[in-house]
Amino acid sequence: MPRHERDVRLATSTVIFALEPGVTPEGAERSASDRTSLWIPLVRRLREPGEGRWALPGGWLGAGEALDRAAARTLEETTGVTPRYLEQLYTFGDPDRSPDERVVSVVYWALVRPEETTGAIDDPNVRWFDADDLPDLAFDHNAIVEYALGRLRTKLGYSQIAHAFLGETFTIAELREVYETVLRVHLDPANFRRTVEASGALVETGEVRTGTRHRPPKLYRPAGPTDVGSAGPFRVPIAPHLRKSPS
Amino acid sequence: MPRHERDVRLATSTVIFALEPGVTPEGAERSASDRTSLWIPLVRRLREPGEGRWALPGGWLGAGEALDRAAARTLEETTGVTPRYLEQLYTFGDPDRSPDERVVSVVYWALVRPEETTGAIDDPNVRWFDADDLPDLAFDHNAIVEYALGRLRTKLGYSQIAHAFLGETFTIAELREVYETVLRVHLDPANFRRTVEASGALVETGEVRTGTRHRPPKLYRPAGPTDVGSAGPFRVPIAPHLRKSPS
Repeated sequence: MPRHERDVRLATSTVIFALEPGVTPEGAERSASDRTSLWIPLVRRLREPGEGRWALPGGWLGAGEALDRAAARTLEETTGVTPRYLEQLYTFGDPDRSPDERVVSVVYWALVRPEETTGAIDDPNVRWFDADDLPDLAFDHNAIVEYALGRLRTKLGYSQIAHAFLGETFTIAELREVYETVLRVHLDPANFRRTVEASGALVETGEVRTGTRHRPPKLYRPAGPTDVGSAGPFRVPIAPHLRKSPS
Repeated sequence: MPRHERDVRLATSTVIFALEPGVTPEGAERSASDRTSLWIPLVRRLREPGEGRWALPGGWLGAGEALDRAAARTLEETTGVTPRYLEQLYTFGDPDRSPDERVVSVVYWALVRPEETTGAIDDPNVRWFDADDLPDLAFDHNAIVEYALGRLRTKLGYSQIAHAFLGETFTIAELREVYETVLRVHLDPANFRRTVEASGALVETGEVRTGTRHRPPKLYRPAGPTDVGSAGPFRVPIAPHLRKSPS
């Protein structure tokens, strides 16, 4: 049956990356499996195609709705997660990516801080997964996550995207942990500190991280406005009415 | 009249950047207005909306057609230009970007070498324009070109995207001219040469550019495989049948 050009449907999907601190059992040595890892929220599909499979949060574009607004809305409706910014990642439109109809999906992504996930829906059909250890997802969503991971890792090399995972101020160890987690490498703490300090990209705030057992580490902030990657041309803050209070 | 989600139509548009060598009249001093500049092909619209205005080459997505294939096909049909690669740039979907219906456009871009424009259609409704001096285009196409220019200028700083404008081998002066043209700056030739030579990104081919009046300049090539930017996940060469022979 020949399809008409009019039959193309437009959807948005979103890849949300969050750092999940590893938990070391009391009294145990901190091991590799306790380390911080990169997590994404997925939603279980409740109907065909792909019923029962996990998929990226998303949904159909509304008739009069901007693309970024649709991405924010469908993310909020399915997961309760409300990042401050979503950035357009790539549009996926392979003719066979959905079995029954032609669906083109404009994919957005965001790196979020822990406080941006506080509104997350408590539902067995919404679950966070280790981004490097995903099940077989619906549609081409494994390939989409792979692509997003590649972009994230590449961008870490030439932008200040790492700050998107951190608060306003952070320790150098916390910044190093972002690099170690995303790039899946172990970095020498002293070398990392020297490189960062020499770069001029951070300034000391004059404050320290309290509540730690040892010598409290210094807090830093970015030296200038942080560009967390190549923003789209119409990047706008997500509307307040879509932001969920952490009740 | 409320629109249905099904009424969204999908199009592709393409921004092609080419360097146009400036022409210095015989016997005259080379002046700023003779300098190489950045040009893009535009197509005059022959029907509403925007009849008579210039617009980016493009067209509707075919029902079973991949996005990049649609971009290559509509570019070829409207302008005859057949770049070796097209890369997805951004998807523009503002609800009001087209007056009569909802159109979402997946925009592709390419940087082309002179030989990739040889098949260009000879038609008064296809014309190349200085990318920094465009008329008032149809739809949001001025904003799209602005965005593409911004991305090009940013990418020049962290990638080897400049090579996309050059042949397999090139002189350092030719490489400098790419940077000068795209960034609209004047670079000190000796400093530029030293910086490039120190970077290790180029190797000498052992050959020289012949046919010049003075001491023939050395030819270089990239030291490794050139990554001309963040390619999309499904970046593929454009099919041979879409490539036009330069007849």
